[in-house]
Amino acid sequence: MNKTACIIIIGNEILSGKTQDLNVRYIANRLSDIGIDLIKVIIIRDIEEEIIEAVKESTSKYNYVFSTGGIGPTHDDITTESVAKAFNKKIITSEIALKKIKEFYDNKGEELNQYREKMANIPEGADLIKNDITKAPGFKIDNLFVLAGVPSILQNMFGYVEKYLDIGDAILQKKIIVNIGESSIAKILEDTANKYKEVDIGSYPFEKEGRFLTEVVFRGTNKEIINKAYDIVKISLDNKNIKYTL
Amino acid sequence: MNKTACIIIIGNEILSGKTQDLNVRYIANRLSDIGIDLIKVIIIRDIEEEIIEAVKESTSKYNYVFSTGGIGPTHDDITTESVAKAFNKKIITSEIALKKIKEFYDNKGEELNQYREKMANIPEGADLIKNDITKAPGFKIDNLFVLAGVPSILQNMFGYVEKYLDIGDAILQKKIIVNIGESSIAKILEDTANKYKEVDIGSYPFEKEGRFLTEVVFRGTNKEIINKAYDIVKISLDNKNIKYTL
Repeated sequence: MNKTACIIIIGNEILSGKTQDLNVRYIANRLSDIGIDLIKVIIIRDIEEEIIEAVKESTSKYNYVFSTGGIGPTHDDITTESVAKAFNKKIITSEIALKKIKEFYDNKGEELNQYREKMANIPEGADLIKNDITKAPGFKIDNLFVLAGVPSILQNMFGYVEKYLDIGDAILQKKIIVNIGESSIAKILEDTANKYKEVDIGSYPFEKEGRFLTEVVFRGTNKEIINKAYDIVKISLDNKNIKYTL
Repeated sequence: MNKTACIIIIGNEILSGKTQDLNVRYIANRLSDIGIDLIKVIIIRDIEEEIIEAVKESTSKYNYVFSTGGIGPTHDDITTESVAKAFNKKIITSEIALKKIKEFYDNKGEELNQYREKMANIPEGADLIKNDITKAPGFKIDNLFVLAGVPSILQNMFGYVEKYLDIGDAILQKKIIVNIGESSIAKILEDTANKYKEVDIGSYPFEKEGRFLTEVVFRGTNKEIINKAYDIVKISLDNKNIKYTL
């Protein structure tokens, strides 16, 4: 059985519509590749009680939880404190993190200030997650990985997260783009899905130049069975003279 | 007090990383404009028990809940049935919806089939939400609006949702792009946030040509107070010779 995961996006900027989230898709793809099943995503506000509730609930339900956002230097960055409260831990200053942050600002010819120092704070007992870009680290506490919200930093940190994760069966995927709306091929897909229950067959309509086409996606961990389901759908489409591209 | 809202994205394709969600940002912006506070977003799999749980929990907590996805004609579209179960309602065929769907396929010279007919199913007592694009409607049951997942259809349907919503105080927003990383202006922002607690002052770092800049966003419902906070930040930046654009 693959391990399970949940993402908590801490972000007023997403809920206000100001910012398009890009982190869910990035993490989702990485998890698919290493065989961890992403079960749920929660997007919440930068409010302490909401963060504590989401952290408590998700860390008890899923093998791995990834949070993004709220670990910067400003007054609205309250993730670290909230997470410490969720785990009943004190906040300590990581001397290793502080040294790296100091070096980063030294190199820019700038002083540390209390706000920059704040980024060296972690809950007691947490492991640091490296950040090669701006040096202020994320951290791991129990099964929660607390990561930055800026996509480039998040992606850099995620490289250091993977060593903690139990790799599962990679989720394999094949797809067929069918040149027609999904209701015309619903029976083919249903019959195939009923026959190959191990394969998750998804049907996704999309618009192209004013017409609706269908992307059919076959997902699972057993390559042979996926190929069988895929071939049957192709043959059925051929038999009905329905055009598709692979 | 503005009404509260929650979005439930029903979508294996988002959790697998295959598809970039675009619906959260669209709905979030519309809700900001009409003064409804989006509190939470949940992204879940196309699994009946998970949909039922998310629907029950969110409809009891928030004034309005919007679901997207899973109301099409294929075997993996299980939102309508799951929602009916969450509300303990029977599924009925809406004759109005069936007529529209039939007309849509008549115009294309195609027959109704059982899969297309399925899109006329709604929980007993639900109101139809119009869809001008492919005619298969969404529906409203209690405080839940069940909408399509395809962005163009979702956006069309949302126009018909708004008449059900209690308009609140529109959420006003001003912003300043500061030409420097956020840790350099953290004190200015904190002091201003402490002084104007009614204003939600967000600080969002972003990368541009390898450098980190900061977007400072002032949000709230009181224009006068927002302007005061905004002016103070501008003056403080001027006093420190920090460059910014509005």
